[in-house]
Amino acid sequence: MLLAIPTNEFKERQQNFARIIAERGCDSAVIYAVADIFYLTGFHFYPTERPIILFVDKQQKYYLYVPSLEREHAEEYAVIDGVYDYLEYPSLTHPMITFAAVLKQHHFEGQTVGCDAAGYGSSMGYRGPALAEVLTANYVSVKHIIEEMRFVKSPNEIELIKESCRWGNLAHRLLQKYTKVGYSEIEVTSRASAEATLAMIETLGQDYKPHGDVGAHAIFRGQIGPESAFPHAVTQNIMLQQGDTLVTGAGATVFGYHSELERTMFVNEVSKDQEKYFQYMYEAQDVAFDNLKPGVTCSEVEQAVQNYFKEQGIQHLTRHHTGHNIGILGHEAPFLDVGDHTVIEPGMVFTIEPGIYVPGLGGFRHSDTVVITEDGMEMLTYYPRDLASLIC
Amino acid sequence: MLLAIPTNEFKERQQNFARIIAERGCDSAVIYAVADIFYLTGFHFYPTERPIILFVDKQQKYYLYVPSLEREHAEEYAVIDGVYDYLEYPSLTHPMITFAAVLKQHHFEGQTVGCDAAGYGSSMGYRGPALAEVLTANYVSVKHIIEEMRFVKSPNEIELIKESCRWGNLAHRLLQKYTKVGYSEIEVTSRASAEATLAMIETLGQDYKPHGDVGAHAIFRGQIGPESAFPHAVTQNIMLQQGDTLVTGAGATVFGYHSELERTMFVNEVSKDQEKYFQYMYEAQDVAFDNLKPGVTCSEVEQAVQNYFKEQGIQHLTRHHTGHNIGILGHEAPFLDVGDHTVIEPGMVFTIEPGIYVPGLGGFRHSDTVVITEDGMEMLTYYPRDLASLIC
Repeated sequence: MLLAIPTNEFKERQQNFARIIAERGCDSAVIYAVADIFYLTGFHFYPTERPIILFVDKQQKYYLYVPSLEREHAEEYAVIDGVYDYLEYPSLTHPMITFAAVLKQHHFEGQTVGCDAAGYGSSMGYRGPALAEVLTANYVSVKHIIEEMRFVKSPNEIELIKESCRWGNLAHRLLQKYTKVGYSEIEVTSRASAEATLAMIETLGQDYKPHGDVGAHAIFRGQIGPESAFPHAVTQNIMLQQGDTLVTGAGATVFGYHSELERTMFVNEVSKDQEKYFQYMYEAQDVAFDNLKPGVTCSEVEQAVQNYFKEQGIQHLTRHHTGHNIGILGHEAPFLDVGDHTVIEPGMVFTIEPGIYVPGLGGFRHSDTVVITEDGMEMLTYYPRDLASLIC
Repeated sequence: MLLAIPTNEFKERQQNFARIIAERGCDSAVIYAVADIFYLTGFHFYPTERPIILFVDKQQKYYLYVPSLEREHAEEYAVIDGVYDYLEYPSLTHPMITFAAVLKQHHFEGQTVGCDAAGYGSSMGYRGPALAEVLTANYVSVKHIIEEMRFVKSPNEIELIKESCRWGNLAHRLLQKYTKVGYSEIEVTSRASAEATLAMIETLGQDYKPHGDVGAHAIFRGQIGPESAFPHAVTQNIMLQQGDTLVTGAGATVFGYHSELERTMFVNEVSKDQEKYFQYMYEAQDVAFDNLKPGVTCSEVEQAVQNYFKEQGIQHLTRHHTGHNIGILGHEAPFLDVGDHTVIEPGMVFTIEPGIYVPGLGGFRHSDTVVITEDGMEMLTYYPRDLASLIC
């Protein structure tokens, strides 16, 4: 059972990124994006007012620049050639001033430096200069390079996503088991999530490193009864009622990797109307599955799904595209969207979740996580999809 | 019991912001920051690849621009004069193109427009132009204005933070109760968090709206035994051992507001060394409490704490400043830091958490949430601070 990305895979990622930026004429690079720093080094952290920055110099060595309170943490857990630290933010000397001095030691001054942003950004009270204000260099954007490296998942990444699916599946089983008339959404989701997390911990033991939200979860996020017609509602602590349409969500974090499982369920009974829209949704998801294979574009898959909805005369009930990539982040590019012409490749991991939303009645959406294979796709989630299995 | 910010308070915030930007010569403004949109409108959402933007026009009317899947959600929950929506991201027409058309309807073209960023930003696969690339106007930065409006909390905000403290306290009680040799950190924290959340839901009922992470939580985030010397470690699923130093954390989300409670605890027994450093930490926190009052600067409070550490000869064991504001975000400006010269005012809510970190032995940090009063401060958290109460 794989529970971590091996060190050599992080090193390969670092070599690949260094090669790509060199091809684009960069001597060195500075990266601020949290998910990309994790992808290249395995260093997981919660961004705060204190900048954390990754840089690679002309010798293709990688360094982390962290506040002193993260130093030991970075030294112990990151796959990295060195760690620099600064005292604190804001402190008497701004961390970006100290950072410029570190970069000078690595001869960044006057070089062509690839950057994924103008400077550090955080909503948590941070203020500071752009890097160009404190260090003279020829700055070029390398934004999206690492994001594109993350499009196709490695066999190890797919294993971690499969492990995530396993525990999301258990959390969802428990969610369905505890779904009863008169229970609060938070009571049901909290109990299911806690029990699934405990089972996950007992099974995986101390080798399990979440690198993100801990354990497994199953949620409704307010998509209950008529409010399930809000596709991205947030938890409202609603009481479950007879006949409610429910749209669920479940997953687990395994070494920073995620999966997505969502089901349309019904409390105790299902009306003819609910059954009708459930069937449309079910068939739309099948259309997407049938069209997913290497060589087609994301937009072609979405177009096939939209054509199905149009044929049924219910295109006006759709609110969003068919799916997105998933991995280190819950939503990643590319998207199964009419505007995304990325060619689908083996190893891409998508959520497949065409949805329809009927005001006053509810929302109808399953989401499954799938990986593209050499000639089609493989389902990674494995929860029952049929109506009979989803009446609680 | 207050469980929500009333509508009129959101309207007052909107009027204040409109007044401030008018004073700075802006005709209108565009806001992207998630916490600031919540502060002005009560609209809580999870940012994804799909832009969500708030704008205020010259008539001082506020509008949300959202993807169609958020439309009903925004109409039902936001305090807002109107909602515009776009089909999807990326779609055939980019959402920023449609947004520019909406702003033109509101006569933004050629106006002086305050912005908190150049355009929408998200790590979740979003790409798009800066607003200036799609709409001609005189753009000026209004970054940090709303952040500064949020420095001083209203009586209602303080009530919500107090309610958060109450449930963080229960979660921490349960965490301490379940802390036993041989248990995994995740087992203890998951059980304590789930039980506290259930009690919270049963007590507060359907009026409880989290607007953020649901319910209450208590955690160790890997700060166990020698690893507690990493001030910002992340959960590692460590097994608790006799004599471990623990640094905990607890809180709860109430209508989007937060509090922070942290304690240094010991598993079963405490050594002379552990007791010594505990005492230093305890006294340092007292120094901060004694110095907190209106009219002094944040840096003066931090200086007093640093002087105490220096007198004891342990300044080299510190890793971070004494505290930060807290409210809608877990960390907010201003900071109790030698580099932050903000004058402290009544209504500011700070965490007080000077810490010391002894390699090989552990970390020593309590955190309490306090509000500044007319002549000093009031503790909002109320968990025992003394050593005898914190040996599990």
